[in-house]
Amino acid sequence: MRSMIIIIDGLGDRPVKELGNKTPLQKANTPNLDKMAENGINGIMDSIAPGIRPGSDTAHIAILGYDPYTVYTGRGPFEASGVGLDIKAGDVAFRCNFSTVDDNYIVTDRRAGRIKEDTTPLINELNKMKIEGYEDIEIIFKESTGHRAALILRGENLSDEITDADPKVVEKAPKTVHSTTNSPNAEKTADLLNKIIKESYTILRNHPINLNRIKNNEAPANIIIPRGVGLVPEIEELNKKYEIKSACIAETGLIIGIARFAGMDIIGVEGSTGSVDTNLDNFIDTIIDNVKNTDYDFFLINIKGADESGHDGNAKEKVEFIEKIDEVVFSKISQLQDMITVVTADHSTPITVKDHSADPVPILVYGKGVRVDDVKRFNEIDAVKGGLLRIKGSDLMNILMDLIDNTHKFGA
Amino acid sequence: MRSMIIIIDGLGDRPVKELGNKTPLQKANTPNLDKMAENGINGIMDSIAPGIRPGSDTAHIAILGYDPYTVYTGRGPFEASGVGLDIKAGDVAFRCNFSTVDDNYIVTDRRAGRIKEDTTPLINELNKMKIEGYEDIEIIFKESTGHRAALILRGENLSDEITDADPKVVEKAPKTVHSTTNSPNAEKTADLLNKIIKESYTILRNHPINLNRIKNNEAPANIIIPRGVGLVPEIEELNKKYEIKSACIAETGLIIGIARFAGMDIIGVEGSTGSVDTNLDNFIDTIIDNVKNTDYDFFLINIKGADESGHDGNAKEKVEFIEKIDEVVFSKISQLQDMITVVTADHSTPITVKDHSADPVPILVYGKGVRVDDVKRFNEIDAVKGGLLRIKGSDLMNILMDLIDNTHKFGA
Repeated sequence: MRSMIIIIDGLGDRPVKELGNKTPLQKANTPNLDKMAENGINGIMDSIAPGIRPGSDTAHIAILGYDPYTVYTGRGPFEASGVGLDIKAGDVAFRCNFSTVDDNYIVTDRRAGRIKEDTTPLINELNKMKIEGYEDIEIIFKESTGHRAALILRGENLSDEITDADPKVVEKAPKTVHSTTNSPNAEKTADLLNKIIKESYTILRNHPINLNRIKNNEAPANIIIPRGVGLVPEIEELNKKYEIKSACIAETGLIIGIARFAGMDIIGVEGSTGSVDTNLDNFIDTIIDNVKNTDYDFFLINIKGADESGHDGNAKEKVEFIEKIDEVVFSKISQLQDMITVVTADHSTPITVKDHSADPVPILVYGKGVRVDDVKRFNEIDAVKGGLLRIKGSDLMNILMDLIDNTHKFGA
Repeated sequence: MRSMIIIIDGLGDRPVKELGNKTPLQKANTPNLDKMAENGINGIMDSIAPGIRPGSDTAHIAILGYDPYTVYTGRGPFEASGVGLDIKAGDVAFRCNFSTVDDNYIVTDRRAGRIKEDTTPLINELNKMKIEGYEDIEIIFKESTGHRAALILRGENLSDEITDADPKVVEKAPKTVHSTTNSPNAEKTADLLNKIIKESYTILRNHPINLNRIKNNEAPANIIIPRGVGLVPEIEELNKKYEIKSACIAETGLIIGIARFAGMDIIGVEGSTGSVDTNLDNFIDTIIDNVKNTDYDFFLINIKGADESGHDGNAKEKVEFIEKIDEVVFSKISQLQDMITVVTADHSTPITVKDHSADPVPILVYGKGVRVDDVKRFNEIDAVKGGLLRIKGSDLMNILMDLIDNTHKFGA
C-alpha cells in the first residue's frame, strides 16, 4: 500500500450568500470527490488547533507531523529552500526583493519595476560579496522569479532576533536592521545585514543590466532588501521520521521549500501556474506517471488555485475551479489501486474573509481498510458526521501511516 | 463584529428520572435558545479536559484562554479580586471569614452569627495592624458581604505553600498555619499569618460593634480566619492577549474576581442575587444597554441560578429557571445584530450529583458566518450532532476571535 495527501489549498469556506448560503465546496458539483467520500471515512481537521488561523506554511508543517511552533521560525528558511538553496540547521535565511533606490538611497520601487529579466547575473555578482570583519560568514544569494530572491547567512554565532529591512512603502530608505534582544549574536547579525544591504547597492547600481534598464526607462534592480528572517531549525527528515520514500508535487515555492527542507523529492509539473489557470491535465498526468513508474510510497500534493479565488473573494471562480479539479484530477485519483488517499485542505480561505480563517477543513480518507461511514458528499458540513470526527493536522501522518501498515507498535 | 460568551452556570446535566430521563435543558421549553441552535453551529465542550471536574473559577479561567493549571493557585486571589482588591502578581491572597471565638480561643461560630452589619469599621481597624518583624509586608483586608472578607499580603519572599487556618468545624481553635515545604519563605508566611490571626482577635474583641453584638446576644465578629491561600500569578491582560476591549457582567464575586484580575471592566446589575430569584429583566436590560451604548467588543456574561438548582438537586426549579432565562434573556439576545454570541456553561451541575461533574456542556455559536449545522435544539444530547463536535474551553476564545476577524495569521 502507498499513500497520498492531496491538499486543495484554501478549500475550506463559510456559507456564502450568493451561493444560497452554501460553501463553494457544497455548491460545486463534485461527483468524484463525493464518490470518494461515500466510500471513505470523513471528518474535519484543525491543521494546527481549533481557532488558530494558519498560514499555508505552518499548516503544511503541521500536516507533515512537525510542530510548527518549533519548526516555523519565519518565512525566510522555506522561501530559501523553495528557490533551491540547500538550507542547513543554523543558517539564517531571508526572502528578498530586488528593489530600486534613487541617488538619495530612498526606495522608489519595492519590486524594481517587477523586473522580467533573469536576475542570475545580478545574483552572481552579489555572491562575490565580502564584508570586512565577517570573512567567516558565507553570504549566499539565489534568484527566484521576477524581483524575488533569497539569502542565507551561514556561519557561527548568527541569530534571527533582528528586525526587517523592508520599509513596506516607497519614498522611504531601507530600514536599518536592529537586534531585538541584546544578544551579541543578534547585534552581529544585524550589523552584517546592514552592511550587506549597502554593499548590494554598490555592486548593483552600475551593473550593465541596470544601466540598460535605466536607458529603457525601467526601474533598476539596484538594491536587495531582505525580510522574513528565520533561523533554520534542526528537523528529522520526513523519510526517516516515517520510514518512507516521499515526494512532493506542488505549485508554490513556499510549499516546495517546506518539502525540500523535510528532505522530500520534488517533482515539477509543466505548465503549473499556482493559479486557477494551471495546467491540471499535466498535473494529474504527473501524479499518475509517478504513481505508476516510481517507488515513492508517500506523495504530498498541493493544488493552489482555490486559495487564490478565496483571497480574491470570487465565489463563482472557486466553485468552478473545484468542479474542474474534481473532473480532471479526482476522476483519476479515485481509480488508483493500492493507495490510501487523503483529500483535505491546509486551511479555509472563506470568500467572505478574503484571507485564511481558522474554520476547520473537511477531510476524507479513501482506500482499502478504512471504516467507511455514511457521509455521501465531500464538504465542510457533511464531513462533520463522518467517522474521523475532529482531528488535528499533526495526527494525520500517523493515521495515514497506520492505514498503510507502516508504523511501530508502541508497547507490546 | 462584536462577540459575547454567555455562561449559564452549571447548566449541563445528566438524565433525570423525574424528568422522564431527560436533562433539565432537554425538558425545558426554550424556543429562543432552540432558534439560536437551529441557526448556529453546535457542539459539546470540556471546559478544562474530558473527565476533569471543574470549579466555576477554573472553568472560567480556561474559557478565557488561560491555563488553569498555571493561573489557578487557589481561590484566595480571585475572591480578593472579586471584593475589589487590586491584586498584583506576587501577592499572597486569602478569602476570610469573620468568626467568633470564646475566651478560651475556641471557635463557637465560623460565620460570626452571619453578621448583617457593615463590617467596614472592623476592616478599618484590621488594616492598621502592624506585626513586629514584618514591617516590610503590607497587610490589606477588605470586607465583603456578611461574614466574608479577603486578605492580601504584599511584599518580598512570601509563599502560598502553607496550610489553612480554618478548623472547618466549631468547638476547635483556629488551626495553626504551617508551611507545607521547608522553604524559608513558606515558614515566614505561615508565622506571619499565625500572628495576624492572633492580632485580629486583639483588635476585634473589644470593638464597639462586637460589644454591641454581645449585648444583643449575637455572636461577635472577634477574629478573622483566612483560607484558600493562593499566590497571585502573572497573567497577560485579556484586552492585550486578544486585542479587544472587554467587559464582564456576572453575579458572583468569584467570577467578577477572575474578570477583574484579567483586566476586564465590570458592569454591575441592579437586583442581581446570583440565585433563581435574580432580576433577569435588569440583567438583560444591562446587557442590551451596554451593547448599544458602549464600544466593548467582547462581553463575558455569567448567569448563576441554574447552578444553584443543580447543587440543591431541584430538577423542577432548574427547568423553570432555564425556561425563564430563555424567555427573558435569549428572546432579546437572539435579536442582536453584528454580534457573534456563544451560549454555553462552565460545567455541568447534575441534579443527581448535587455538585459539579465533568460531563461536557452544550455549546452553540450564533451569528454571521458560522457554518450552520442541522441541530435544531439546544441541549446536551442534540448538541453532539453539531458542527463543532467536541472542543475544549481553551479553544473557545480563539474560535470566537477568528469569527469576528480579530486574529493574527500564524505563518504566511
